[in-house]
Amino acid sequence: MPLTHFNPQGEAHMVNVGEKAITHRRAIASGKITMQASTLALIQQGNHKKGDVLGIARIAGIMASKRTADLIPLCHPLALTHVEVKLELTSAEQVPAVLCQVTVETQGQTGVEMEALTAVQVSLLTIYDMCKAVDRGMCMTDIRLIHKSGGKSGIWQTQNP
Amino acid sequence: MPLTHFNPQGEAHMVNVGEKAITHRRAIASGKITMQASTLALIQQGNHKKGDVLGIARIAGIMASKRTADLIPLCHPLALTHVEVKLELTSAEQVPAVLCQVTVETQGQTGVEMEALTAVQVSLLTIYDMCKAVDRGMCMTDIRLIHKSGGKSGIWQTQNP
Amino acid sequence: MPLTHFNPQGEAHMVNVGEKAITHRRAIASGKITMQASTLALIQQGNHKKGDVLGIARIAGIMASKRTADLIPLCHPLALTHVEVKLELTSAEQVPAVLCQVTVETQGQTGVEMEALTAVQVSLLTIYDMCKAVDRGMCMTDIRLIHKSGGKSGIWQTQNP
Amino acid sequence: MPLTHFNPQGEAHMVNVGEKAITHRRAIASGKITMQASTLALIQQGNHKKGDVLGIARIAGIMASKRTADLIPLCHPLALTHVEVKLELTSAEQVPAVLCQVTVETQGQTGVEMEALTAVQVSLLTIYDMCKAVDRGMCMTDIRLIHKSGGKSGIWQTQNP
Amino acid sequence: MPLTHFNPQGEAHMVNVGEKAITHRRAIASGKITMQASTLALIQQGNHKKGDVLGIARIAGIMASKRTADLIPLCHPLALTHVEVKLELTSAEQVPAVLCQVTVETQGQTGVEMEALTAVQVSLLTIYDMCKAVDRGMCMTDIRLIHKSGGKSGIWQTQNP
Amino acid sequence: MPLTHFNPQGEAHMVNVGEKAITHRRAIASGKITMQASTLALIQQGNHKKGDVLGIARIAGIMASKRTADLIPLCHPLALTHVEVKLELTSAEQVPAVLCQVTVETQGQTGVEMEALTAVQVSLLTIYDMCKAVDRGMCMTDIRLIHKSGGKSGIWQTQNP
Repeated sequence: MPLTHFNPQGEAHMVNVGEKAITHRRAIASGKITMQASTLALIQQGNHKKGDVLGIARIAGIMASKRTADLIPLCHPLALTHVEVKLELTSAEQVPAVLCQVTVETQGQTGVEMEALTAVQVSLLTIYDMCKAVDRGMCMTDIRLIHKSGGKSGIWQTQNP
Repeated sequence: MPLTHFNPQGEAHMVNVGEKAITHRRAIASGKITMQASTLALIQQGNHKKGDVLGIARIAGIMASKRTADLIPLCHPLALTHVEVKLELTSAEQVPAVLCQVTVETQGQTGVEMEALTAVQVSLLTIYDMCKAVDRGMCMTDIRLIHKSGGKSGIWQTQNP
Repeated sequence: MPLTHFNPQGEAHMVNVGEKAITHRRAIASGKITMQASTLALIQQGNHKKGDVLGIARIAGIMASKRTADLIPLCHPLALTHVEVKLELTSAEQVPAVLCQVTVETQGQTGVEMEALTAVQVSLLTIYDMCKAVDRGMCMTDIRLIHKSGGKSGIWQTQNP
Repeated sequence: MPLTHFNPQGEAHMVNVGEKAITHRRAIASGKITMQASTLALIQQGNHKKGDVLGIARIAGIMASKRTADLIPLCHPLALTHVEVKLELTSAEQVPAVLCQVTVETQGQTGVEMEALTAVQVSLLTIYDMCKAVDRGMCMTDIRLIHKSGGKSGIWQTQNP
Repeated sequence: MPLTHFNPQGEAHMVNVGEKAITHRRAIASGKITMQASTLALIQQGNHKKGDVLGIARIAGIMASKRTADLIPLCHPLALTHVEVKLELTSAEQVPAVLCQVTVETQGQTGVEMEALTAVQVSLLTIYDMCKAVDRGMCMTDIRLIHKSGGKSGIWQTQNP
Repeated sequence: MPLTHFNPQGEAHMVNVGEKAITHRRAIASGKITMQASTLALIQQGNHKKGDVLGIARIAGIMASKRTADLIPLCHPLALTHVEVKLELTSAEQVPAVLCQVTVETQGQTGVEMEALTAVQVSLLTIYDMCKAVDRGMCMTDIRLIHKSGGKSGIWQTQNP
């Protein structure tokens, strides 16, 4: 099966979706940023009192989802109808981290996987930016699609939750 | 040590860098996207013949580095003097993946870590976009800073290469 | 009644409008910029002969209406079908000013109040920019919604015309 | 004194600032949005507990200051070195309102008045957006320059504080 | 017949297309960049082996088509469903050149001529940028609409192919 | 002589200009759009009285010059210090046309040829957009660099004026 973003001559194009049905599309993506325990503690303090790192990362992710077609060369522009960014602090398995999960929805002719993944990436980047002065070794990881629905290919669910 | 992106009242601001010296700044960031072996093979074919996934991902990364201050709320705008995006196919440890390493340089009052990390993220997202029709389970991972130099804090090098 | 841009946990989201009907939406917003009489005279001259301040402010307002979702974090992207920017010179009540009134229309699932208000703001800012060398004390004021129609909440009209 | 944004033929241009000295530039602008007392109370609750309207408006203002040259046609692009957005709740003179004051700084050949005013406008617009479901009659008003320094024209201070 | 982008007072507006039918719209535009034979030879080498000028110009054109409404003041924003950029080397009539032809499609209330022409322009500009170090005298020429269909005015075809 | 936008492996990069001297850079580019005599007459009427096509095209060109690095993948971001767009009606050699000439200046480490050419292209595209309802056969042509100065390569002047 060839890659659909290229024509038979191997030239990139924005795939023709004009014949596709307009359906309700949803995508969920997730990822995390790992960090030192002391950095996580700083974020946690801000969450309660002041210096709201997570609130700013959430806004940055929502705004980035709207810029996806500007950033990803062959992505179709889409008018999103819903964007939700969840951020959660964790120390599971002794690894301090912020988990990010983004849900994006639209009514359209193509899916919103890229919008959800872009929002995750920019939310995590914003956390990195705000904490980098105290912890340059933070690592963004496990960024991937969790679920998609809508369109001809129907529902897809990760097998590696 | 508090987070510098907040003032004493806990309100976010774009940090005042007006008193900082203009020095030569460099940052190197890296990351990877893991995938099925058959997806890697498709990318490899395009690299040689047609359907150049890596060429497009490289351009997307370079262009994204120039949009960093539009995406990351408290990031200072900077006129970059050099951006280099390296993409490499690997199957090390039985995990098919594309590795991405980005070098960014400028003469400025603040560092270019965010520009390098943003370029890595958007290069990987572009690979995801172009291959998602054949492999939705691809995972972007290990995105982090490798090296930075310039400015008062001098050289920083990851201890986990 | 709580603010709809937050979920029950108080986290910001882009509200889900996917279930809303696509209807004809219209919004009218207005505002003004007050200035010295001599500044108004300069604008008036340009309007007739050369140095067309109002023509440029009008274009800036129209273009800004298309950038609204880039600027306002939780605003839905919308494909506008009509934008009209009216600018009028006045010296009513001895206060020299330029009045700005903007009408925006679309077919969509959410209203265009923000697009109309953003166009007013950027039209007024552009007038400020072009005249600031002669009058830094200009003041932008009374920027508000005048009318909206379409959607479930129907027609709203200011009670303070 | 003619308007500097036009050449002798009355044609708009981006003024040549190439001969101007690079100096430290600062501008302070302010404005407010008036509203119902019950709307102010909702914002105040969010400020303490959840639904942080002011935090989001602050981020929107900072981000908008970086887009000024994209919005205002004849504005020079400038690399800002500092942006600070202050938001304060007030009920002075029986008028419930949020006051906004923005300080912008740079090292450059032209001033940052437009960046400060644009940040005020977009902060206020964001408050409007987040509260409009409960109070469509809010009014943005008194948006103006308070102070500027740097460049050949030196310090300017409003006489109407 | 007056120009439709102005109202009866001669003021620019974004034309009201709200009453127009949503139809399938297609536009084809073309243009070329002429150059020295040695420059064409360099591009040709890259096309086969390395330094893929045409691949990058194609991506730049596709991305620019999505930015059309940001660039052209009175252009309506449109969600494109298909963009195809063809680039071809030629030495017809002893004039070495790269020909560019772009097809854009959408379902919408207004045509996509501007999107197709903008993509041609930015593809050619990108070729200029990449080759200017060896050939500053390159010339972009014959950029025009070839075909449009959809909407009330139906099919239009250039008479000068 | 190889193309400088590729490294020895043929991979695109944003060329390192960090070692280049900051000098005064200037570029002049020109182009034209040919049209029917009746279209030229409509533009001419607007120029005098109402429907100011040239004024809007001029603004669009100036604004586009500021977006050049967003559009041209490997272009360095630059803070322009001067942009001037000249538009002139002509019927020389029986070909009705609007001539466009743009001058751009900066103090920087790299030239402003692309900014001048981009401004020409978008000014001409804007004229096309505003007149296309009466004349779809308009043609943009002879878009090229006329002059550049500054930097190591010094002055370049077209030999084909």
